[in-house]
This record gives sequence, structure tokens and C-alpha cells, in this order.
Amino acid sequence: MARVTQMIILNGGSSSGKTGITRCLQVILPDPWLVLGTDLLIEVMPASMQESDAGIEFAPDGGISVGPQFRALEQAWMTGIVAMARAGARIIVDEVFLSGAASQRRWIDLLGDLEVLWVGVRCDAAVAAGRELSRGDRVTGMAQAQAGIVHRGMRYDLEVDTTHTEALECARLIAARVA
Amino acid sequence: MARVTQMIILNGGSSSGKTGITRCLQVILPDPWLVLGTDLLIEVMPASMQESDAGIEFAPDGGISVGPQFRALEQAWMTGIVAMARAGARIIVDEVFLSGAASQRRWIDLLGDLEVLWVGVRCDAAVAAGRELSRGDRVTGMAQAQAGIVHRGMRYDLEVDTTHTEALECARLIAARVA
Amino acid sequence: MARVTQMIILNGGSSSGKTGITRCLQVILPDPWLVLGTDLLIEVMPASMQESDAGIEFAPDGGISVGPQFRALEQAWMTGIVAMARAGARIIVDEVFLSGAASQRRWIDLLGDLEVLWVGVRCDAAVAAGRELSRGDRVTGMAQAQAGIVHRGMRYDLEVDTTHTEALECARLIAARVA
Amino acid sequence: MARVTQMIILNGGSSSGKTGITRCLQVILPDPWLVLGTDLLIEVMPASMQESDAGIEFAPDGGISVGPQFRALEQAWMTGIVAMARAGARIIVDEVFLSGAASQRRWIDLLGDLEVLWVGVRCDAAVAAGRELSRGDRVTGMAQAQAGIVHRGMRYDLEVDTTHTEALECARLIAARVA
Repeated sequence: MARVTQMIILNGGSSSGKTGITRCLQVILPDPWLVLGTDLLIEVMPASMQESDAGIEFAPDGGISVGPQFRALEQAWMTGIVAMARAGARIIVDEVFLSGAASQRRWIDLLGDLEVLWVGVRCDAAVAAGRELSRGDRVTGMAQAQAGIVHRGMRYDLEVDTTHTEALECARLIAARVA
Repeated sequence: MARVTQMIILNGGSSSGKTGITRCLQVILPDPWLVLGTDLLIEVMPASMQESDAGIEFAPDGGISVGPQFRALEQAWMTGIVAMARAGARIIVDEVFLSGAASQRRWIDLLGDLEVLWVGVRCDAAVAAGRELSRGDRVTGMAQAQAGIVHRGMRYDLEVDTTHTEALECARLIAARVA
Repeated sequence: MARVTQMIILNGGSSSGKTGITRCLQVILPDPWLVLGTDLLIEVMPASMQESDAGIEFAPDGGISVGPQFRALEQAWMTGIVAMARAGARIIVDEVFLSGAASQRRWIDLLGDLEVLWVGVRCDAAVAAGRELSRGDRVTGMAQAQAGIVHRGMRYDLEVDTTHTEALECARLIAARVA
Repeated sequence: MARVTQMIILNGGSSSGKTGITRCLQVILPDPWLVLGTDLLIEVMPASMQESDAGIEFAPDGGISVGPQFRALEQAWMTGIVAMARAGARIIVDEVFLSGAASQRRWIDLLGDLEVLWVGVRCDAAVAAGRELSRGDRVTGMAQAQAGIVHRGMRYDLEVDTTHTEALECARLIAARVA
């Protein structure tokens, strides 16, 4: 018998379309799902974490470097999200695995027997770069820089590609796999 | 000799992709262009204008009704935008012509001899409705309701369709027509 | 020997100034603290939770009613936040205890031996109502409705009052109590 | 007989509380007033204008330098706002006069016989700096840098001081002078 899916983890580069997919999932899935991800973690940290070697730095060319203080907070954050799922909340995690398989390994070490659906969100690098422009952000380059590296060595239950498929259609493909 | 384009007026329904196109235009056009539109006018009005018969009302089904007080402010707003263009600012107007050709007529009456590029932004209604979901807005239905009616009786210099074309590519088609 | 403070829980009505205080705390406290609260929980839920009896409803007069589905998600959310703190993240919780002492009891049942600083954030109801206007929200009335009830039966380690004291000064009073 | 006030121009440094006052004015004034200001102009410009010598640059210490391309667009923007007011819209302008009296002179040269209420919004520099922190912006220093210089040589019909007076009360003082 299929066990109930407790968590959906989406991984994809910046501007690959993850956020649009998660919003569609929240609409089409019959239960209420919480959406948590890296962007939110950065939002709830002090702004000064973006100005220190120990924190997270966004280079003008779209590169990102992460220090030990950020890593420690992220580890506690992930631990808390797993605890929320164990306590009964269904959770969509919206992630950018800058270290590919090593990032996935960190999650797997925490997940235990939680039932997780792993989803890769791909997008052609040039198309993602164009969508990055259309969002009007001042810093550009992340879409191009991340499009390939985030999927290195990853194992997914399902992959979607937003290059030619709308967010809603991708969400339907994912929802069909949620038990 | 081609006269310099002073204004670009884009018309399309909600979630047709106008905003993404305008942001790309601001990046790829060599001169700085200001982007002004209906959403901005609503933003700079008192919030109470959204709760009065004289103002603008958004129905739960995506319908919009506009009262005399809103119309009067909009007329002054349009007059000011035309004056900005005459004073030398290059301006992209991002509009939703709920009354189609009659809305276009109101602009034409103000524009005089300004050099304007009229652009229709189309998107398949079902696709626009899906993108509306992916934005996470609480009120939905506007994309479906507006997809067709905003283009009734309109005359354009150029039409783009975001159903299968990325915002950046649409912006390039438009930029190629800017003198 | 004073044990290290692991969590700061601020409770106050809408527009009492909690958010400004938490941002100042993030700047003046030497370690990085995460800020999590009710507003964030609502933000990460599906928008439809705000339109259902089982979720959370905001009445036009500023009243709020909370249903069983919201309560269940909130309980899992709180459990996760406690787990983050146990895993080493220092956390500021920004709360509106609509049920006063009963809300505090729900936290205490989860906190175990975590070292928590309880802070009440007061503001004169009329002043809070004025600040609510100055924020430009369309729905008003919450500041007035909540100013008193959120503090009923609460026990605090420290109380601050933003009526005549700036957010930064309140934050300094709180920071002086953080071990 | 008092002529109808067509425009209110508020001038004050960053974090002096102008925005809160304008939102209260929009609520308490019986007619609908549009709020336009420097922040909005920057928002509608291309993001790249913030990265060029010809545009506007925000230094890490809170300093601002303005180039010729920004100045030209600003001049057209001001011309358009004056035209909106002449066309019947009542307008609140929310400004930061970095050049004090010279900035005022530029407006006066455009205003002609429009009926304008000039308002200075003051705030103690240390208090404004604290409020800047409480907003959580990453760049700080503008409040301190601008508190004094924006008022140099200015002439006002009315001055308000938000150091010890709430935004709503300041708005009432201003509204009492609107004809």
C-alpha cells in the first residue's frame, strides 16, 4: 500500500520556475501544504548574514558562496522542517542544491523514514536567463550559473522541464505522484 | 525619415505577460524608458478607491467595474503621462483596455502628434489562467475574463503572443520596431 | 550561571510594533537570530486557507477566527520551530496570542527545558490604530481589536511599550536580558 | 476666498516618516489624492539606472549621487506631475530634496499658478537612524546623512516633526491647512 507523501522536495536553479510550480501545487493538491525553502531561510536571517564571509554572499556575476555560520543555521532549519513534517504538516521544500548530490545527502541523513517525493525542476539555461531578465532583478547571472550544477549526481523520483511546459502542467505531473 | 518613438503602449489581459515584456524592454533598449501603467495608478490611489462605487471594484469572479471618480483620475493621469513624453521621457505604458477600442480612442485623443508604437500582447486564455494560478494571487478569474475583450476593435502596429514565446523574445520583436 | 537564551517570544497586538523591534534585535544582537512568526505561517500556507471555515478568516472589522485545519498546521509549525531551537538556531518568535494565556500554554507544553525569554509588546490602542492607518493596509480594525485581549492572563519576563518608546530602544531593553 | 489646494509637496530625509503621513492623508482627506514621489520614479526607471554614473548611485554609507540622465528624466517626470494636477488630479508629492533650496526652485519654475502647500517633515537624526534600522533595510546611513541637508534654505507653509508626534497627528495638522 502506498504510504502518504509527507514531503515534496523540488530542486532547480534560480529562475527555473520552482516558485510558480509550488503555488500551483498549493492550489491543486486537496490538502493544505506549506511551502518552505532557501529563499525563506535567507529572508528570516539578519540582513547582515549577506555581508559576511561566515554567511552567504551573492557575487555580481551570479555566483554564491556559503560560510560556516550559514551552514549551521541551515542545518537547524532543515531539522526543524523535518520535525514539522513528522508532526503532521505536509511540506513542499523549494531548494537550490548548489552542491548537488552532497546537498541531497544532507537532507537524506535527516529524513529517516519520512515519505518524500524528490522532484528535479529543469529549464534550458538560456531560457532561464531570459526569465531572470523578465523578473527585473538587478543582479543577474544566477540562472545561467546554476542551471546545470544543481542537478549533478542527483536522484529524483520525477523530473519536470519548464522550458516548454507551463508551471500548472508541471504541477499536475507532480500531483499525480503524490500519495 | 523615421521619427523617434516616444511612447510604447502595450495592451493585454491580466497574466498575459506584459510586465515581463516591459522589464525585458527596459534591459534591452539602449535608452532608459520609464514604465507606467494601470497597476501603478491603482497603487498610487487611496486604498479606499477599491471599496467604492465611484472607484474601481474587483469582483470575486475576476470582473472589474470602474466608476466616475476613477475615470476622472485616470484621465488626469493619462494627460500627465503624455506631458512627460512631450518633455522628453521615453515611456512604456502597460495597459488593460477593458473597453477595447473605446479605451484606445481616449489615448489617441490625448496623444496628438506623439510618435507611438501600439502593441497587442495576446495569450491563450487557458494558459493565462494557469499563469495566474502560478502567481499565487488570492483572486483569480481576471486572466480568463480579460483575454479576449481587451483586444476588441483594437488597432496595433505589432502583436506578440506569449503563449509559446518567451517574454525576452517578444521584447526583441518590439525593440526591433522602436525607432 | 545564566543559561544561554535559546528563544525570544514576543507577543503583542497588530501594529503594536513587534516587527520593528525584531528587526532591531537582529541588528544589535551579536549572534544571528532567525525571526519566525504567525505572519510567516500564513504566508507559507495556501491562499485558500484564508477563505475557509477550517482555516483562518479576517473579518472586515478586524476580527479573526481560526478553524481546526489552521490549528493543526500551527501546532506542527510550533513543533518544528522548537526543534530548530534545540538544533542550535537562536529564534525570535513574533506572535499574536489571540487566546492570551491559553496560547501561551500551548507553547509552554512544547518548550520543555528550552531557555525562553517572554516579552510583552504593548501599545496604546488608539496609537496602534493610527499606525495601522499609516501602513496603508486596506483592512483596518485589527490594532484596536487586539490591543488588550492578547495580553490577558499572560506572564512575561519583560514588557515594553512602544507608545512613547522607539523600536530600537525597546530592542535594547530586550537585548539586555538575553543571556 | 481660499483657492483649492491642488498639490501638497512634502520634503524630508529618508526615514523621517513621510510615507506614513501620506498614507494617513489619503485616508483622512475627503477627496482621493494620488501619491507620487522620488521612490516611485526610481521604481519605474530601468534597474540599470542604479548602476551608472549618469543615473543614481547609492553609496554604502548612505550617500547618493545623481547624474545627468537621471536629472533629465526627473525633469520630465516633474513636468508630467504638474500636468496631472492641472488636469484635475489632486497630488501629494513625497520628496527628498538633496539639494535643498535648489531642488525647491526646480519645482517652483514648473508650478506656475498651481496652488501648492509646502510641508517640511523633520525628524531628529538619531531617531530617524533608529527607525531606519527597524525597517530592516540592508543599506543604512541615509537617515543620518539626509536629516539636516534636505531642509537647507527651504521655505515651507507648514512644518511637522515626527520625533514625538505620530504620523496620523502630523497628517491632521496638514489636512487642516488643505483648502
